Amino acid sequence: MHKEILEDIGEKELINRLGKFMPKNQILDDCALIKTKNNDLLVNCDSLVENIHFNDLTICPRDLGWKAVVSNISDLLSSGSKKTIGITISLILPAKTEWFWVEELYKGINKALKEYGGIILGGDCSKGNQKAISITAFGIQGELELRRNACKPGDIILTTGIHGLSKLGFMIQSKVNFDNKFSLNERLIIKSIEHFCRPKVYPNFLNNLLKTRSQKKIRRIGCTDSSDGLFQALQDLAISSKCKAIINYEKMPKDKDWPKGDKWDEYYLFGGEDYELVFSLPKKWAKNLSKFDKDIKEIGFFADGSPSVEFKYNKKNKLFNNTPFKHF
Amino acid sequence: MHKEILEDIGEKELINRLGKFMPKNQILDDCALIKTKNNDLLVNCDSLVENIHFNDLTICPRDLGWKAVVSNISDLLSSGSKKTIGITISLILPAKTEWFWVEELYKGINKALKEYGGIILGGDCSKGNQKAISITAFGIQGELELRRNACKPGDIILTTGIHGLSKLGFMIQSKVNFDNKFSLNERLIIKSIEHFCRPKVYPNFLNNLLKTRSQKKIRRIGCTDSSDGLFQALQDLAISSKCKAIINYEKMPKDKDWPKGDKWDEYYLFGGEDYELVFSLPKKWAKNLSKFDKDIKEIGFFADGSPSVEFKYNKKNKLFNNTPFKHF
Repeated sequence: MHKEILEDIGEKELINRLGKFMPKNQILDDCALIKTKNNDLLVNCDSLVENIHFNDLTICPRDLGWKAVVSNISDLLSSGSKKTIGITISLILPAKTEWFWVEELYKGINKALKEYGGIILGGDCSKGNQKAISITAFGIQGELELRRNACKPGDIILTTGIHGLSKLGFMIQSKVNFDNKFSLNERLIIKSIEHFCRPKVYPNFLNNLLKTRSQKKIRRIGCTDSSDGLFQALQDLAISSKCKAIINYEKMPKDKDWPKGDKWDEYYLFGGEDYELVFSLPKKWAKNLSKFDKDIKEIGFFADGSPSVEFKYNKKNKLFNNTPFKHF
Repeated sequence: MHKEILEDIGEKELINRLGKFMPKNQILDDCALIKTKNNDLLVNCDSLVENIHFNDLTICPRDLGWKAVVSNISDLLSSGSKKTIGITISLILPAKTEWFWVEELYKGINKALKEYGGIILGGDCSKGNQKAISITAFGIQGELELRRNACKPGDIILTTGIHGLSKLGFMIQSKVNFDNKFSLNERLIIKSIEHFCRPKVYPNFLNNLLKTRSQKKIRRIGCTDSSDGLFQALQDLAISSKCKAIINYEKMPKDKDWPKGDKWDEYYLFGGEDYELVFSLPKKWAKNLSKFDKDIKEIGFFADGSPSVEFKYNKKNKLFNNTPFKHF
């Protein structure tokens, strides 16, 4: 009998299959939802595994702690969390791990919590061969429900910032694929490392959305974050919302010194770990918001059609042929 | 410079040090507490790591899923949870893991949730070298706050059932230290394997406590579970509550076929994974409860004195000299 193993299935299909063990009314989104009498809680869990998601060469433990928190808060924000309550931390660590490493990790964790709100609620620590940090983060659902499946044909697609920088930062830090033959300038190098090691999120995002809302009755909008890359975010929105994302290549916000060329477009589209929000709004709201917050850019729109992502001008669509298929 | 590593520190000291990164008002207990307007939520996280907490030889994935849920629900109950809301699951799995293994694990998880209440709220899955299952469980804090630090001198110490069986089950399953030279009978063997693979918890515990309460104003009682063994549970209560546990060796409930001898006393005291509750009550309440529920047994009392565990009759105290010190 053929034994089906996870690397044959792939991550997306695995998550799909696991979803079938959940009750039907439970949302399959960036966060899980716990309904309580007054407030609905948003819950997100995310694991970082050594040599898969990080290694000692590319990121120091203090930055890793910061980043672990930020990646969870990003998921809370992309579901419409109005306040981060706190986190629990499950550590798996080899017996030979230095206490210094753990202490630094926790300093980074607390630094991020101090910046964005929330406390350490609890945790546990187990022995294992490979370092792993699983964080479960808790937030309070705000007035607007931000969900992957809430994009509508006609909506404008927006993003909070520039993509690709974290990937570039990773390449610079890992020194493997990077010899600066592109003569990148010092500013872009520093900025990219900063984006990779100390990513930021936008805690004002929800307030700014509320301030610029064109119709009070709209309470659900389509949103996710670009933790797995801009393309993946757009595809997740398109598939969950059952519509087609049409992207204007020229409108995608890039760093002013970002090099040209297909390779760099791929870093931009598939890089990941930028923690920018990718979302959709009705036209008027989109106009209000991008006028109110100059960092937020319109990059395309949703249309009726089979769930997919394409560029407005056909010639750039070849980029998607190189979608790096992620084996588990 | 000497580099301090985790195996030098030990698990208890590590948890202590990590506690210093938490806000002072946060409880260091079996569960973390999230205060919301109407209900307080109890949150517990626990990881099971392959070759540390389980292996394919001793437990099948369906039983492992069951057990992972039960160990979390046990922690919720031992903090006074009146209802399990649900769990999130973080899996770390090698790429060569069979889908069948994952499916079986989830079947076991859902079977336990069906038995004891709660749903799968969400989760994530990452690649790694070594299988690890981190579950975060959510419960609603009931009227009685059960806390490790709430035992009082004069309180009677009680337990919900028999200890040591899970350890015996583990030895039988691992076939390493077990050749049945003790001629254990079939019933005890089956019961022990059942305790190891399919441990149970007592969801009626909280109701029975409330039904038998001697004074309505008592709202906090000392409690933990014996997941790390009876001795560890008693020591955790004694240290957190700053008093001395005095145990009556003869009163500890044992299986009627449990062999005699120091080795077997050690399995009983230090075995772990029995998920019985170990708790303390004022005398009258203790009498009411153990009359109401015949499985619950009084095994000793708390007294003023330095935090420690000792037997009422001195000659048995040598057992504690062999406390298996757990390196990380």
